[in-house]
Amino acid sequence: MMPASQSKSEAPAKLRLDGDALVANWRALAAQSKGVACAAAVKADAYGLGARDVTSRLAKAGCHQFFVANWREAEELVDSVPASQIAVLNGCTGAEFFQAQGIGAIPVLTTPAQVTAWKAAGGGRCHVMLDSGINRLGIGPEQVSAALLGGLQIDILMSHLASADEDTAQNATQLETFTEMSQGVECQRKSFCNSAGIMLGNDYHFDLLRPGLSLYGGIARPEMADFIRPVVSIAARVLQIRQARQNDPIGYNATYRCPEDMPVATVALGYADGYRRGFSGTGSAHVDGHVLPVLGRVSMDLVTLDARSVPDLAEGDWVNLDFNLAAASEASGLSQYELLTGLGRRFDRIWD
Amino acid sequence: MMPASQSKSEAPAKLRLDGDALVANWRALAAQSKGVACAAAVKADAYGLGARDVTSRLAKAGCHQFFVANWREAEELVDSVPASQIAVLNGCTGAEFFQAQGIGAIPVLTTPAQVTAWKAAGGGRCHVMLDSGINRLGIGPEQVSAALLGGLQIDILMSHLASADEDTAQNATQLETFTEMSQGVECQRKSFCNSAGIMLGNDYHFDLLRPGLSLYGGIARPEMADFIRPVVSIAARVLQIRQARQNDPIGYNATYRCPEDMPVATVALGYADGYRRGFSGTGSAHVDGHVLPVLGRVSMDLVTLDARSVPDLAEGDWVNLDFNLAAASEASGLSQYELLTGLGRRFDRIWD
Repeated sequence: MMPASQSKSEAPAKLRLDGDALVANWRALAAQSKGVACAAAVKADAYGLGARDVTSRLAKAGCHQFFVANWREAEELVDSVPASQIAVLNGCTGAEFFQAQGIGAIPVLTTPAQVTAWKAAGGGRCHVMLDSGINRLGIGPEQVSAALLGGLQIDILMSHLASADEDTAQNATQLETFTEMSQGVECQRKSFCNSAGIMLGNDYHFDLLRPGLSLYGGIARPEMADFIRPVVSIAARVLQIRQARQNDPIGYNATYRCPEDMPVATVALGYADGYRRGFSGTGSAHVDGHVLPVLGRVSMDLVTLDARSVPDLAEGDWVNLDFNLAAASEASGLSQYELLTGLGRRFDRIWD
Repeated sequence: MMPASQSKSEAPAKLRLDGDALVANWRALAAQSKGVACAAAVKADAYGLGARDVTSRLAKAGCHQFFVANWREAEELVDSVPASQIAVLNGCTGAEFFQAQGIGAIPVLTTPAQVTAWKAAGGGRCHVMLDSGINRLGIGPEQVSAALLGGLQIDILMSHLASADEDTAQNATQLETFTEMSQGVECQRKSFCNSAGIMLGNDYHFDLLRPGLSLYGGIARPEMADFIRPVVSIAARVLQIRQARQNDPIGYNATYRCPEDMPVATVALGYADGYRRGFSGTGSAHVDGHVLPVLGRVSMDLVTLDARSVPDLAEGDWVNLDFNLAAASEASGLSQYELLTGLGRRFDRIWD
């Protein structure tokens, strides 16, 4: 009988995750502001990479504050870091109040009703989200008051930028609004910057940075390409190599026809894994520096590649898919955020 | 102390899955051909719905043949149906041969090398994929021979249509090629049709239909809208309602501005859940027949809605997102297949 550890078959596609690059990105982002602490947004399963693995690595590197979206996500991390270091961005609605107490993570209170309920119940330490102009989640300028926020034990008083990836007047307007709204509100720390916001300069930094995308290799603003390292790469197994003939159509709806007799390789990866149909005819893989362009449509579980550049490629070999986020976003028409959060569950996730 | 069953917090977004509609769709697809059996493609976690739940429901309804993509997926189903009813479409490469024996599911052999290895090892019952023109996976016309396939115990001899959703000559060409290639090959059953292929008529049906998309409510060809029922709907909790002011920007990059003072509702759903950015400004939710259009960009964990049609909507309420697949595909610019397989892991999946 096989030991239990071997009974799970190997997945035919792997996410290779570079733990050193993750930590280096966190340090590089922290270094953008002297003496300002740096948290990590690990919501959405750490943007698809795996929240437990990301969180324990960053905690070891010195990160002491983590942001998740909801209580389910907080629960998944309480074995990895102290619950008091986990902030729940989407607040605390109704019955979640009791879950918050059970879990021990700290809610980011986002509405006057939540603030009132938290105070009435003697909820203790909390965070507060002010809406300085994204008009999405948080206490608005028309709602904020000393009466509302007085008496709360606010640790992090925060707001969120809508357009930090653009050079637009909205950034300065939001900074001004946040500064005004937070005037006189008692809190331990103020926080304002996502990945892109960090690049807007010291005025935006306050006491705590909270990058997400760029931790994971995303280039939130072009100038970050200089110091952000890729974290995610994809490898997939070759299932088949065939000699296609000139004019043979490849894949669904015959969107590609072979210009000559040529070897084509089909690999075990598809849009169900998050390798989206946007890569149809635009993506590519590589083997030892040789490029294998994607031919035709990406299928649910399969991608077919032009194998002319690697004549000795064999069934069972592995190829590396190009998943440089900025280039992949360009190639696929999807945002870097969606490319990461759409990464599927069928991969073996392997940390170097 | 809370009992363990209550310790897991409720997810703020739910997938509601209609088990009756699933079974009705399977029966309706089977009814397109008299006396021909109907299998089910449950690969990619049953197109995102949950393979174990789908498989056990369809098995109870009388389905006896299931198709998955790889061995990992097969392993997940062996507690739900007899392993011999599970066919692994992506074949059996290298070490997977031993996994196949351990698991007991049946490989769809897709290359001459796999066939040779299977025969040499006395692998027993198998399925075989012929490539009749999609040029993706399967034994090609130039590779097929009596010498190669002779001596195999072939249960299902199959091929796959590339363009069954279109009215194109490629369909008839593939039918002709499959018929020629399978001539004289000993097998128990032949299978050729995915969901769309079923609508091409009896000549295409052979012995076993194997729909996927339309089981789950997808409209693979327009004429299926008459008899395929939706299976998936999405509900999300309202986290916040705010009175926005005329000209307020909503969400990332301020792509929407309020035409007047108006209530906006932010709900706990985002592209990390598979509610893609393609729904930005195009999607909608409903409550008791009232429509709430999506305002601005869909965020990773949040969507903001125009709440003018439901003045008494309150924080903590639930809204239903419109996820009719054909319309949602049109609205988002994504295929129905991608909308389903991209459904995320944060939902509670609730079967009616």
